[in-house]
Amino acid sequence: PDSFGELDRKAVDTARVLAMDAVQKVGNGHPGTAMSMAPTAYLLFQKWLQHDPSEPQWTGRDRFVLSMGHSSLTLYVQLYLAGYGLELDDLRALRTWGSLTPGHPEVNHTPGVETTTGPLGQGVGNAVGMAMAARRERGLFDPESADGESLFDHTVWAFASDGDLEEGVSGEASSLAGTQQLGNLVLVYDDNKISIEDHTDIAFTEDVGKRYEAYGWHVQHVDDGEDLAALDAAFAAAKAETGRPSIIVLRTIIGWPAPNKQNTGAAHGSALGDDEVKATKQVLGFDPEATFDVAPEVIEHTRKAVERGQAARAAWEERFAAWEQAHPERAALLSRMKTRSLPDGWADALPSWPADAKGVATRKASGEVLAAVYPELPELWGGSADLAESNNTAVKGEPSFIPASQQTKMWSGGPYGRTLHFGVREHAMGAIMNGIALHGGTRVYGGTFLTFSDYMRGAVRLAALMQLPVTYVWTHDSIGLGEDGPTHQPIEHYAALRAIPGLDFVRPADANETAVAWRTILENNDRPAGLALSRQNLPTFDREVMASAEGTAKGGYVLAEASTGTPEVILLGTGSEVQIAVAAREHLEAAGTPTRVVSLPCWEWFAEQDQAYREQVLPPTVRARVSVEAGVPMGWRDFVGDAGRIVGLDHYGASAAYTKLYEEFGLTAEAVVAAAQESI
Amino acid sequence: PDSFGELDRKAVDTARVLAMDAVQKVGNGHPGTAMSMAPTAYLLFQKWLQHDPSEPQWTGRDRFVLSMGHSSLTLYVQLYLAGYGLELDDLRALRTWGSLTPGHPEVNHTPGVETTTGPLGQGVGNAVGMAMAARRERGLFDPESADGESLFDHTVWAFASDGDLEEGVSGEASSLAGTQQLGNLVLVYDDNKISIEDHTDIAFTEDVGKRYEAYGWHVQHVDDGEDLAALDAAFAAAKAETGRPSIIVLRTIIGWPAPNKQNTGAAHGSALGDDEVKATKQVLGFDPEATFDVAPEVIEHTRKAVERGQAARAAWEERFAAWEQAHPERAALLSRMKTRSLPDGWADALPSWPADAKGVATRKASGEVLAAVYPELPELWGGSADLAESNNTAVKGEPSFIPASQQTKMWSGGPYGRTLHFGVREHAMGAIMNGIALHGGTRVYGGTFLTFSDYMRGAVRLAALMQLPVTYVWTHDSIGLGEDGPTHQPIEHYAALRAIPGLDFVRPADANETAVAWRTILENNDRPAGLALSRQNLPTFDREVMASAEGTAKGGYVLAEASTGTPEVILLGTGSEVQIAVAAREHLEAAGTPTRVVSLPCWEWFAEQDQAYREQVLPPTVRARVSVEAGVPMGWRDFVGDAGRIVGLDHYGASAAYTKLYEEFGLTAEAVVAAAQESI
Repeated sequence: PDSFGELDRKAVDTARVLAMDAVQKVGNGHPGTAMSMAPTAYLLFQKWLQHDPSEPQWTGRDRFVLSMGHSSLTLYVQLYLAGYGLELDDLRALRTWGSLTPGHPEVNHTPGVETTTGPLGQGVGNAVGMAMAARRERGLFDPESADGESLFDHTVWAFASDGDLEEGVSGEASSLAGTQQLGNLVLVYDDNKISIEDHTDIAFTEDVGKRYEAYGWHVQHVDDGEDLAALDAAFAAAKAETGRPSIIVLRTIIGWPAPNKQNTGAAHGSALGDDEVKATKQVLGFDPEATFDVAPEVIEHTRKAVERGQAARAAWEERFAAWEQAHPERAALLSRMKTRSLPDGWADALPSWPADAKGVATRKASGEVLAAVYPELPELWGGSADLAESNNTAVKGEPSFIPASQQTKMWSGGPYGRTLHFGVREHAMGAIMNGIALHGGTRVYGGTFLTFSDYMRGAVRLAALMQLPVTYVWTHDSIGLGEDGPTHQPIEHYAALRAIPGLDFVRPADANETAVAWRTILENNDRPAGLALSRQNLPTFDREVMASAEGTAKGGYVLAEASTGTPEVILLGTGSEVQIAVAAREHLEAAGTPTRVVSLPCWEWFAEQDQAYREQVLPPTVRARVSVEAGVPMGWRDFVGDAGRIVGLDHYGASAAYTKLYEEFGLTAEAVVAAAQESI
Repeated sequence: PDSFGELDRKAVDTARVLAMDAVQKVGNGHPGTAMSMAPTAYLLFQKWLQHDPSEPQWTGRDRFVLSMGHSSLTLYVQLYLAGYGLELDDLRALRTWGSLTPGHPEVNHTPGVETTTGPLGQGVGNAVGMAMAARRERGLFDPESADGESLFDHTVWAFASDGDLEEGVSGEASSLAGTQQLGNLVLVYDDNKISIEDHTDIAFTEDVGKRYEAYGWHVQHVDDGEDLAALDAAFAAAKAETGRPSIIVLRTIIGWPAPNKQNTGAAHGSALGDDEVKATKQVLGFDPEATFDVAPEVIEHTRKAVERGQAARAAWEERFAAWEQAHPERAALLSRMKTRSLPDGWADALPSWPADAKGVATRKASGEVLAAVYPELPELWGGSADLAESNNTAVKGEPSFIPASQQTKMWSGGPYGRTLHFGVREHAMGAIMNGIALHGGTRVYGGTFLTFSDYMRGAVRLAALMQLPVTYVWTHDSIGLGEDGPTHQPIEHYAALRAIPGLDFVRPADANETAVAWRTILENNDRPAGLALSRQNLPTFDREVMASAEGTAKGGYVLAEASTGTPEVILLGTGSEVQIAVAAREHLEAAGTPTRVVSLPCWEWFAEQDQAYREQVLPPTVRARVSVEAGVPMGWRDFVGDAGRIVGLDHYGASAAYTKLYEEFGLTAEAVVAAAQESI
């Protein structure tokens, strides 16, 4: 752009040189894209991005997502130049223990990093989620302002590579972004035609721009990643387009201007080598012998981003103060959302259910919980991957989050609505939920069938890694879904989800456990949780006779004590199988065996209890134990011990009425009784 | 088409009526699409599909994939009409225990069903895989014939719904199909604008035809699913197009002609209700009171498909006999591939490695195994999701499987090549591998980083459910990958993959275990396997001193016996951590504790051994046990018991050199020694 001069040109080249040096020093990493995307990244951070490097958490800031996380240097170098607190020593410490510059960018670790990326495609989903959250938050705080004039209007910028756009999750998210008409989203596609297996001709030949036109995006092409004037104009046009998301298809030469390795797969994921680094420095007019060589006038120039940012933020803060005064209730909500704290007394709204042998499906109970707490928690919103009615995720009467033009006979709503429609896109749903949680203080949930947690697993893992408080409403949680058969019946999913560090997996046994589970999940603000909910009705236990469902919050509790108070055997279960344990207890007690039933809805919460409580629930002296759960046995040995027995399912289900399946697969009170007798 | 008459029209309507009746009888299911796709399905099965209902395994047949598996009746009714052996009683038994008509189509269960579908999008990937396999097999058996004139030329037909095309996996597969120029693939997109949440306006508004144009497909539009003449012309044009895959965007009205429920979400996934079924029968001129009402002249007419099929097959068999005679070696290969048996002596080609303290990465050993057995096993082929060099999946000198026009400087090849390039598309890779295995007797493998097994999990589960012998080459299998950090370091994946019933998860400890693991995997032909392979070098154990790597085939074996022959403690490990157990054994032995080391590369194979062998390896009397594995502890309690200790990782990794990570995270010989002392 016209405003850029010689120092800017030198700063861009400095970015390239630092990227080469940093990778060369540690001996591994990804220099190529950081070199070829340096002009674009510099233009963004120094001119277009609304940010204040001295306050990375500023509410009014734009967001930047580097979807190709392997090119972390693209971001780290700009954070260094713009003055986020990263210094040359941090770049020197790239990819080493304890550094602020890990191999892939990690949120909550390095100031200025907005999301953890690396698994390709996720960042595109995150960016779409951020853009959606920005709109929803604006609707909560400032729905009246004209377009582009709200304190809460800002732009989400993202960079994506060939690999990002080959991944299905980015396609899913981009299609939804088109339907959602996300005018606050700008995606730069680094079209360098090189991936790890070298030229993309062998596997990726589609017309990406045309694909994005098909999604309903505003598409621009810039043919040379070194042409800052063209890029500047494209950024301006993208920002001006507020009715559609924008993509800029940007042709770059990976590793530019390395004389031998530019435009090769070798520049993608390996150090260039000393000779090539030196040769490149010569091309750029840098001293080939110097490393991490930054001219003082360059860094002085680029760090002016701090002043500019502070000025912009000061102006914003002034308007913000006026807004706070004019809208004290909204300001209080924003303040509460910033700490993710809940309003006093909110939980009083939670429903409870009387004892009922016929009972209610826990998915239905979950829907009733949502309906009850929606008025208390405006920050709560969510939806489903096209299974709203099955997942019970849509609260009646609430508006859909859709452009007004997309309303249907069944779903009315508007751009600030509350019910999300993800389409049949579980993976994007997960990545979008992450973006929503990263953006601000709303609490989002998303539903699908438990078996399709497999489809979204890449995003669930990142939620756990990033400690994001998103909630998965996974219904149809066992062979209990019946006729849809083995493709739809989760068997191994309990174990597979419990294996993810940092994810709470919760499988309530009845409606009242479901309410306490939701309460506990919402009280946690530092981790994701997944609810496994039944399709079929489950009896609502008589809490006058059995223990209170409050024990759910501890992850496990004595639901029914042995008649003598001293159990001879303990039966453990989760979800729909707890009723089997309860029935087995009746048989055993009738036969003279004092039997305790422990409901264990969340292993992670139970593990957090102190040893005394855990041993109170599962006394080490009682070694006769039986678990019952309609899933693979994996993990249960920790609870039942060497002497225990595990009643589970180590094979796939079948298509039939669920009552028939439980019978045929031996998930019955009789089987539990027999196992208990063996264990004793 | 002109050849169709009144009986055909009535047969189409009979298909609709049967679909309604079958769902109504069981009380649940998906009638709507089976009604609106009945004309298309009928046209395909009665005119275009090359098949012989009396021989569903005919090698020369076309393949049909119903990606929207929930609409299983679309397929079941055509199988009934065409004479595959399904009868009205089977339709009456829809979705019930033991029936041939489960909720979703299941391969190896119902004659004429080519793949198990239900999880949306997978079928599109399967179809792409089948089309790729057809080309590869043609290259093996008959590369010389002109296009369209080979015995091994046939067409893969698939139907897909809105949901299928919303799923990212179908986009990934379709993009690759474009690059691969799969002219033998025809996809019919049932564009009914209705999904479970009713009108797709709320979530799916893209221009699908344009998206497929961007992928490089041949795109046609048919505006009315009842217009058989237009459909017939579209099928003809799609089949004539041999240079690109074809998609037909077909507008239908879901549930047509149900007077009240057509064109609604209600027609998608629920029984229509008695009144609506009756009303629809009246519209169609059927007796509203009769159910499963098939006019004798209709079934007589449609079953002529058998005669036609037999005649077509007879003509084919005649040519086939000539081909067999002309090409005895190829015929022998085909015959061997049909039973998935291996040639005598093939395993002699397997490499072995001498003891070496520095050793070799198991991913590298795996690459050497592939290179060694490639000449012996022409049916073996594979590739990577853009990580060929990292996964060591490409055998040097072998041609790539790509259209000649897509060759690059790095990769030469042709349409019948052997090295697959999936692009950065792990999920599609999994679904395509399933399609390849379903199509014929080749043995396919596909590589990515182990952490991205998460992305392909939906397809891996289906491989296990379908018992398909595909192999996943998952490298970079632990924190041992080092600097790329937590997003790339699998922690929970061992447990999560072991949880999948029917999948063999194999994590060899050194090069020689890797060779035996590959041999064992290839000897199995009824299940998928995943190899977890190290990025870093692992010492090659001295098999003169320690036990032979042959024990790998049993899943677990005594690698190093206690010096006294009677262990006081047993150390168990897998993969890169076995060397830690071996080092710990040295310390313990030196301190006077007789210590056995058990390598346990595959839990599933070990579980298949008889109890005597298992107790020989893990004597019940030795209760002091320690496991060491760089992953979550889940599942290890079954091996170490109440008295044992588990040295693992219950949190995410970090970005640093791997040696540093092992040290910081306490995965060391010292830690194992300490745990052993506790356990004793």
